[in-house]
Amino acid sequence: MKKISENLGNNNGRLTIGGVDAVALAEKYGTPLYVMDEDLMASTAKAYTEAIEKAYGKGNGMILYASKAFCCLESCRFAKRNGLGLDVVSGGELYTALKAGFPVEKIYFHGNNKTKAELKMAMENGVGRVVVDNVTELENLGAAAAEARKTAKILFRIKPGIDAHTHNYVRTGAIDSKFGFALENGEAFEAAARAKEMKNIEIIGVHCHIGSQIFDIEPFEDAAEVMLRFMAEIKNKLGVTVKELNLGGGYGIKYVDGNDPVPYGDYIAKISVRVRKVCEKLGLSLPFILMEPGRSLVGPAGVTLYTIGGVKEIKGIRNYVSVDGGMTDNPRYALYKSDYTVVLADRVGEKPAGKYTVAGRCCESGDLIQEDVPLPEPKAGEILAVLATGAYNYSMAMNYNRVPRAPVVGLSGGVDRLWIKRESYDDLIKNDI
Amino acid sequence: MKKISENLGNNNGRLTIGGVDAVALAEKYGTPLYVMDEDLMASTAKAYTEAIEKAYGKGNGMILYASKAFCCLESCRFAKRNGLGLDVVSGGELYTALKAGFPVEKIYFHGNNKTKAELKMAMENGVGRVVVDNVTELENLGAAAAEARKTAKILFRIKPGIDAHTHNYVRTGAIDSKFGFALENGEAFEAAARAKEMKNIEIIGVHCHIGSQIFDIEPFEDAAEVMLRFMAEIKNKLGVTVKELNLGGGYGIKYVDGNDPVPYGDYIAKISVRVRKVCEKLGLSLPFILMEPGRSLVGPAGVTLYTIGGVKEIKGIRNYVSVDGGMTDNPRYALYKSDYTVVLADRVGEKPAGKYTVAGRCCESGDLIQEDVPLPEPKAGEILAVLATGAYNYSMAMNYNRVPRAPVVGLSGGVDRLWIKRESYDDLIKNDI
Repeated sequence: MKKISENLGNNNGRLTIGGVDAVALAEKYGTPLYVMDEDLMASTAKAYTEAIEKAYGKGNGMILYASKAFCCLESCRFAKRNGLGLDVVSGGELYTALKAGFPVEKIYFHGNNKTKAELKMAMENGVGRVVVDNVTELENLGAAAAEARKTAKILFRIKPGIDAHTHNYVRTGAIDSKFGFALENGEAFEAAARAKEMKNIEIIGVHCHIGSQIFDIEPFEDAAEVMLRFMAEIKNKLGVTVKELNLGGGYGIKYVDGNDPVPYGDYIAKISVRVRKVCEKLGLSLPFILMEPGRSLVGPAGVTLYTIGGVKEIKGIRNYVSVDGGMTDNPRYALYKSDYTVVLADRVGEKPAGKYTVAGRCCESGDLIQEDVPLPEPKAGEILAVLATGAYNYSMAMNYNRVPRAPVVGLSGGVDRLWIKRESYDDLIKNDI
Repeated sequence: MKKISENLGNNNGRLTIGGVDAVALAEKYGTPLYVMDEDLMASTAKAYTEAIEKAYGKGNGMILYASKAFCCLESCRFAKRNGLGLDVVSGGELYTALKAGFPVEKIYFHGNNKTKAELKMAMENGVGRVVVDNVTELENLGAAAAEARKTAKILFRIKPGIDAHTHNYVRTGAIDSKFGFALENGEAFEAAARAKEMKNIEIIGVHCHIGSQIFDIEPFEDAAEVMLRFMAEIKNKLGVTVKELNLGGGYGIKYVDGNDPVPYGDYIAKISVRVRKVCEKLGLSLPFILMEPGRSLVGPAGVTLYTIGGVKEIKGIRNYVSVDGGMTDNPRYALYKSDYTVVLADRVGEKPAGKYTVAGRCCESGDLIQEDVPLPEPKAGEILAVLATGAYNYSMAMNYNRVPRAPVVGLSGGVDRLWIKRESYDDLIKNDI
């Protein structure tokens, strides 16, 4: 198994990201700083696109970038440049995509509770697909489509009943979930029957998402089979051919040594074998396949850089190293005790001197980035780097303690370019009256 | 024990806040909406101020409002109008206070990792007190004070070693904490000895904060005693009279029936008995006493209003009611499984029809506000209210899924007034390049 340190750019013990010296970036832009290796994102996107084409045939599949992992104008432009579709989950993400000039027909609108205003916005702007979560929404969408004199092309969000052996909070495919229609109790089929009768609704596909940060392939294969069986049921009982099968996201990434994701191409290929086999068995044509990587596209490409403020060595108890960010830029440890790899940017590979708990700057005991990680003895003023922070870090950032959000810098071809500016103190009070 | 429902304004089954109809507020401002009962905040502030004066004598104590609970221009103005001091924990909170015209000499600057830039900002603006967390900071502060040709008036943040029997994440007074100087290993005393020698530093006081949402009074009394003993040590060994004792915050509030806070006056009074007794025993003059309520000042005054999007009844498993907000406006359940009381705003007191899990709108399974709360059968379009959300809700709000942050409306004398505007979609992309 490849160690995460082997992925680190290391120039004589100094961390490099996309070939650029991390400490130099910290000096240029200040800290905390999110850095995104766009070249890595692009090569990942290319690998995914090639894999899905190889697995299902050219023009018979599409990768949708799941914006919720990291959304800004530049992430949308990135998706456009790299031929990806876009998964958005709110009016705010849709607005960002539209402002970035993203082709609207390739936008899939998700979410368990889209408001009427959002459905109206989606219809008026001609969003490609709406992934319908529940019956109330189906009716609201029908009304919004009628008002906009459009036809809403829909997928149904289905709970395939698959337990993906992951953290309880990121398990979403089982029946006890706020997302989607259950199959077991017939509500999914009833929704399809209702949608078939609706004037401004066209059934295009089905969608599932079984969870997040999953390393096993089998749950994905099983979910695909469940979905195909449902497609067959709709075809046989309602005479409706479901053209699209959207298998969602959830593919795990390496946060720390011990996480062992298979290459994404293998994962796509393996699922495709099952999809083809089940289609044949059920007499279905191969549907158009969609997959929605978010974390795996952007997560490994991100690094967060902090300046160390001070170190507290509490003998026999614990060592704390305080950084100038924390849960405000990365709430995932506070939320989920998520694993991260931590290094000192100017001493990569140096022998650890002890274990250190990386504490944030908020007045909140839970404001930790990671506990008891091995590090060389850290010093105030040094740059500390947390790896694989490209997903669900900036997107979950907050202004708790009125800490301004950190900027995002993208790297391509060894050139740095600001994607998102640092928030100013004036930004913090801009809506205060 | 008084039930939380007895605190609810209830006009023929319709929830009122500060005498104003909640559903009417939701219609006027849209949802999600934070509502703050300013009159309740003001009466609480008055009670606290009177209690501390009664306990320690007029002019011998001050209540500092802990901004981190809820910070905006109006919260600072509120503190000013009501004669409170202010506890800030970052440059952003300090900036907000300064912009609100808050008297700078009554500002106490806290935090475990203030940056050099923040210390400079504090010194240049003449902040009343800096609560020093560690030796690195002490040296940095000395340098910043010298550069600004000022004397920094400091308190030491001390770990009194008190375990306050509360949630692990909100326990901050024990030795295994990122905050402050430990007493046991002598580092607190060493810091005082060092500070005494520093030219631009004046030792004014000591500070402790033993945790949050605590209902027992005894840990606070014990902490006060520990602090007084440390003050005596400084006096005896260094000949420095420590004038201020800041006992921090942490006083619990009623989120749900079962939480049973004693009246704050009783709490202040009981601690003062111990403080006076210990002072006498140790031969100390009664110090100037500070207390820092945040949650208890604003928490009970807040209500969040949501519109219900849909209801999913999963037979034999669970019922979900989806609202148009969630962890983006209140991450406390996702973070800490915090308890909240939930009511339907137009059917307060109606008999529950079952148990419902209140789910937010984010594409995140952990986006729940509360699980299995008794409610009358909720309907799409109804207004759902979550009580006691005035603290650590707006302040911890985030734009995850690019959901705009909700506005805050204050109520006084039955009149509603916007304190913070709703974020627009343009606000979301304002720093995107």
